[in-house]
Amino acid sequence: MTTPPTYADVGDAAVRIAGHAHRTPVLTSRRVDAELGATLFFKCENLQRTGAFKFRGAFNALSRFDGEQRRAGVVAYSSGNHAQAIALSAHILGIPATIVMPRDAPASKVAATRGYGAAVVEYDRYAQDREEIGRTLAATRGLTLVPPYDHPDVIAGQGTATKELIEEVGPLDALFVCLGGGGLLSGAALAARELSPNCRIHGVEPEAGDDGLRSFRSGTVVHIDTPATIADGAQTQHLGALTFEIIRREVDDIHTVSDAELVAAMRIFASTLKIVVEPTGCLAFAAVRRLAATMAGQRIGVLVSGGNIDLDRFTALLTASSGGLVPH
Amino acid sequence: MTTPPTYADVGDAAVRIAGHAHRTPVLTSRRVDAELGATLFFKCENLQRTGAFKFRGAFNALSRFDGEQRRAGVVAYSSGNHAQAIALSAHILGIPATIVMPRDAPASKVAATRGYGAAVVEYDRYAQDREEIGRTLAATRGLTLVPPYDHPDVIAGQGTATKELIEEVGPLDALFVCLGGGGLLSGAALAARELSPNCRIHGVEPEAGDDGLRSFRSGTVVHIDTPATIADGAQTQHLGALTFEIIRREVDDIHTVSDAELVAAMRIFASTLKIVVEPTGCLAFAAVRRLAATMAGQRIGVLVSGGNIDLDRFTALLTASSGGLVPH
Repeated sequence: MTTPPTYADVGDAAVRIAGHAHRTPVLTSRRVDAELGATLFFKCENLQRTGAFKFRGAFNALSRFDGEQRRAGVVAYSSGNHAQAIALSAHILGIPATIVMPRDAPASKVAATRGYGAAVVEYDRYAQDREEIGRTLAATRGLTLVPPYDHPDVIAGQGTATKELIEEVGPLDALFVCLGGGGLLSGAALAARELSPNCRIHGVEPEAGDDGLRSFRSGTVVHIDTPATIADGAQTQHLGALTFEIIRREVDDIHTVSDAELVAAMRIFASTLKIVVEPTGCLAFAAVRRLAATMAGQRIGVLVSGGNIDLDRFTALLTASSGGLVPH
Repeated sequence: MTTPPTYADVGDAAVRIAGHAHRTPVLTSRRVDAELGATLFFKCENLQRTGAFKFRGAFNALSRFDGEQRRAGVVAYSSGNHAQAIALSAHILGIPATIVMPRDAPASKVAATRGYGAAVVEYDRYAQDREEIGRTLAATRGLTLVPPYDHPDVIAGQGTATKELIEEVGPLDALFVCLGGGGLLSGAALAARELSPNCRIHGVEPEAGDDGLRSFRSGTVVHIDTPATIADGAQTQHLGALTFEIIRREVDDIHTVSDAELVAAMRIFASTLKIVVEPTGCLAFAAVRRLAATMAGQRIGVLVSGGNIDLDRFTALLTASSGGLVPH
């Protein structure tokens, strides 16, 4: 099995992405702090290139391609933020990119991926297996497959967000990170454990998709059906082998939050912090809001993972929630 | 008459506000740049404390109070961002604050102002004159009045946003700034003229309230009725004496944009840049979008002045515009 990355790999990734990834701002809010009785630091990866942290891991992974790999190209399967992250990274590095996307993916995401110069291969998500298509393309065309989370260079790249956060604001008492496949959480854990050793590291996933929590408790990777949640970036069915190994070793606790709690957090992001955050990006803050009473006076890092949500969907969620309903 | 401030005053203001005002991030977007054929730098004052640039000028002005002024307190009249900026600045500096607000101001704004510890004096905006109430309070209680824009310390404070922008990204070919009473534009002009001498400086106001443009062309301050526009921060009736003097001397051109153009800009801020911007904060970008073809390849600074808009209003504007309608 592949060896999991270490903090040294996060440091190397930070050098590789410097000047390519944005050093995203850390926002604070006196009002939020007063309401929760703690000091929160929001690391805004929704303001990252392509609108999500995924650019960090993708760019780091592609930067490590050798000459032959660069010539042949990269293949990735994703309907979401990983697709655009690979497409833009490949464009910057001059590497041909092929992205396997479901035929019914939002037109805006397909267009964005093509806009970065990537070739899009469509598949039927009900009849075909995207991982198999990816492997076949890799084998027949000599492409290198970069998976969305279970890869040492991807994990190390994602860890740079937490490295920047702690270097900017200093040691933390707690860090909250969304959990889907575990790329961001495992990278964050490597960075936080090194740079802020006493920081408690929390993963947060949607209630409907609690495979991470069940895996964490049982000590073995639990597989589930695709969960029904508005947090589309956390609709993964299982953790990766590498991400799970790091998470079980370094993470202190895993929590779940409801879709209604995600929308409540989304409202505060928009009204108080003036930022647009996708549902998955609201996971960490939603958990902090629920647990704040147990963390009075603490310095808490919150990773805001992404901001990619169709505007109509965004306004529909906010409009419905002001009347008490959360559309699914 | 009071002497207008100079760039030296902007430099002094920057020292005073350091550590109190946020050094707001500058955002860029590859997609926006590709669409407009220029390189845009968005200075995000919607992410400033109290959600708008006004904190800079207010804090600078209050920092210059002498001991007697500090003990007696400050008075300001505003239903908008200046109120909260004065209230928070006074709170930080331990100065009693009284804010004159219309009785029908949004409850959220009154609550926010009180939340910063200020006393709120309500008045009837149809029957009473807020400036007279402010002057009376100042005279009878010994309070110092800090007006929203026509004050040297306020102008110098607002100039720090442009100082930070140019220091961070380097010289600009053009700078676009919203125009209401002229505090932000005149401060920006002082900073840009000094730090980027060849930069063309543009003011932008709502079509319905083109008093700035008419004043600029006629060489004398034009007064208008309160204009009907969604840009509530630019519903001023006239420029100030000081702001006009700086604007006529340093600004190269003034433009107007429609409410529909403001909403179109607001959509791009939310969907592409992932930020919430109030209508007034969309003025500068709306003008850049209209004029982009004449500025191909240029480096353009865009001041995003604020993000204070009720969430229901925000979603209503975005929802209506997706169907082609703009509610007034």
